[in-house]
Amino acid sequence: MKNYPIVKSRRLRSTPYTDRIESQGVSSYTVYNHMLLPSSFKSIEADYHHLKEFVQVWDVAAERQVEISGKDSAKLVQLMTCRDLSKSKIGKCYYAPLVDHQGFLVNDPIINKLAEDKWWLSIADSDVIFFAKGIAAGQKLDVEISEPNVNILAVQGPLADNLMVKLFGEKIKELKFFNFNYFNFKGYKYFIARSGWSKQGGFEVYVDDNKAGQDLYDYLFEAGEEFNVRPGCPNLIERIESALLSYGNDFDNRDNPFEANFDKYMHLDTEVNFLGKEKLKKIRENGIKRKLMGVKIDHDSIDMYCEKTLFDDKNEVVGFVRSAAYSPTFKKVIGIAMINKPYWDSKDQFKIEIDEKIFVGTICDLPFI
Amino acid sequence: MKNYPIVKSRRLRSTPYTDRIESQGVSSYTVYNHMLLPSSFKSIEADYHHLKEFVQVWDVAAERQVEISGKDSAKLVQLMTCRDLSKSKIGKCYYAPLVDHQGFLVNDPIINKLAEDKWWLSIADSDVIFFAKGIAAGQKLDVEISEPNVNILAVQGPLADNLMVKLFGEKIKELKFFNFNYFNFKGYKYFIARSGWSKQGGFEVYVDDNKAGQDLYDYLFEAGEEFNVRPGCPNLIERIESALLSYGNDFDNRDNPFEANFDKYMHLDTEVNFLGKEKLKKIRENGIKRKLMGVKIDHDSIDMYCEKTLFDDKNEVVGFVRSAAYSPTFKKVIGIAMINKPYWDSKDQFKIEIDEKIFVGTICDLPFI
Repeated sequence: MKNYPIVKSRRLRSTPYTDRIESQGVSSYTVYNHMLLPSSFKSIEADYHHLKEFVQVWDVAAERQVEISGKDSAKLVQLMTCRDLSKSKIGKCYYAPLVDHQGFLVNDPIINKLAEDKWWLSIADSDVIFFAKGIAAGQKLDVEISEPNVNILAVQGPLADNLMVKLFGEKIKELKFFNFNYFNFKGYKYFIARSGWSKQGGFEVYVDDNKAGQDLYDYLFEAGEEFNVRPGCPNLIERIESALLSYGNDFDNRDNPFEANFDKYMHLDTEVNFLGKEKLKKIRENGIKRKLMGVKIDHDSIDMYCEKTLFDDKNEVVGFVRSAAYSPTFKKVIGIAMINKPYWDSKDQFKIEIDEKIFVGTICDLPFI
Repeated sequence: MKNYPIVKSRRLRSTPYTDRIESQGVSSYTVYNHMLLPSSFKSIEADYHHLKEFVQVWDVAAERQVEISGKDSAKLVQLMTCRDLSKSKIGKCYYAPLVDHQGFLVNDPIINKLAEDKWWLSIADSDVIFFAKGIAAGQKLDVEISEPNVNILAVQGPLADNLMVKLFGEKIKELKFFNFNYFNFKGYKYFIARSGWSKQGGFEVYVDDNKAGQDLYDYLFEAGEEFNVRPGCPNLIERIESALLSYGNDFDNRDNPFEANFDKYMHLDTEVNFLGKEKLKKIRENGIKRKLMGVKIDHDSIDMYCEKTLFDDKNEVVGFVRSAAYSPTFKKVIGIAMINKPYWDSKDQFKIEIDEKIFVGTICDLPFI
């Protein structure tokens, strides 16, 4: 596939770390929440191997925050998600599908509860701020909604703990998965969560001061030398192997949360009030006709820029693969696909066209094993 | 400035015309409404000269439509904009700033009235669909909201009329600016507006059938040979010279419509009900402290990837330039800048740093003359 340069502008925002990653050799970008998100450094495959063995520092400022505060903030946040947050605790992170009144997905943020009346929705790639503002205006809720100047640095990989301990002390090892707390370093207090868009372990540092973020970036590379630290970014291969879904790739506003396998984050039988609750109950009653599953394809490369159709041997549509990459672990192309119901338990091979040739593959459960 | 390739994915959607523009030599992309929008073909300056003399066909599928229909659709559309649409007519296009309940700008779409109960908001780069869905859910409005599969082809340039007449007949010349109608060609009915993101004249064809769009694309190039037709795209130089504002570049959700000079599209003293009305009245009462103006800088190039600060000779901040390009017409860099009030009438020169050197410039009114 030919490469096309991206034309920068204020509309595709740079981050406080852009100068640094460019001097360190970022080699491609995507755009995420109107911001530049690095896509590769050495290569997607080289980055993948490094991420699974060492530790990387990621500029994921594009994971923007929607801050919702004020008297009705808990009510508004609950209206936006089908996950029951009534027993949510300060200091915890909640992965939560957002659903509109038609029962369709809007985003799948991590919701950080900072106080009983203050929340940060750490969002995937859609303008959740306008959804929140629309509901708040429509229901005349007493809330403040804004996008704070928070620019996340992620520290990911099996050696992430070692590196972070050097800066923040042993105490950081006590931080549990999907919990956050505040940690001091060189006179600045950092909001740190044990989370991240990989399954290699690590942290996300929510930085609300550009200088503090840039300093931390440099300290991480200084201290990380002994752990072979490198700049990195969410890695296409690793995130598919780990079955971490991507809004806009694997599901979008035309899909409902059952189709995206969000069942365990849906609390339709609780008392809490959220948009689309009745619609979702109806969908549950009727059952869904397609859902996201894994696919494995007998080939060594694939370029994805739109979904690709899967056919059975009678040329009926099996489904559509939405994200895919060659996996060095499975030694096949693996992907995330929306599969039609008749094929959910199929052991038969499907056909797919890649670069004008036909290849075969099979359907599997997620996560991949 | 170094070039970085953009990594394609389903999340950065291709258009029905992507294969065609790539075979014709598109040379860079931006991302707009989660979709690929071409940024240049030969070069931004070569494209500019051609656009001002001949005719171009643009893949502007990234100008997505938010379709709002149903009993309460007029009410919802009016809630979203400060422009009075109570006397709006079917067949007309309305440029309309969208404003949230805090009085901040959300987008500046062209609103096409298709029927008393059906509207297409042809949007700039933000997810208006979630704003609309939020308000509708909050107020329990009886509306349907969706993003239809409409992919616009624009025909722009001084010879646009000549080319379009060859396909659609003399009748198309009667179409007035910011009006739309339906025109037949080869058995397909096309929704065509006299509009477009340049001031060189032309049309936008809203195509709701991929094949009909691709066929039209090919016919336009066949018929356009005698007019020296070329593929093109919204042109950075031309749009700044023409002072066509860009959401995300020149203004965003931190700015109010007074600051963006939208006064003539604001109807605060009418009976119509829209979000932020009282906030905007208060802003009018207190007056604004900054607004968008033009700048001319004595230099021959500028790279914009974030706003750049303008200083006076005491190093006080004059304002921030948000979009800029070298203009072959003015033989200077020209730009659109948010200028602080004390400097609105200043005839003094400001200073700006470009590539680590200091250049001087002056403030001017928009549009540029």
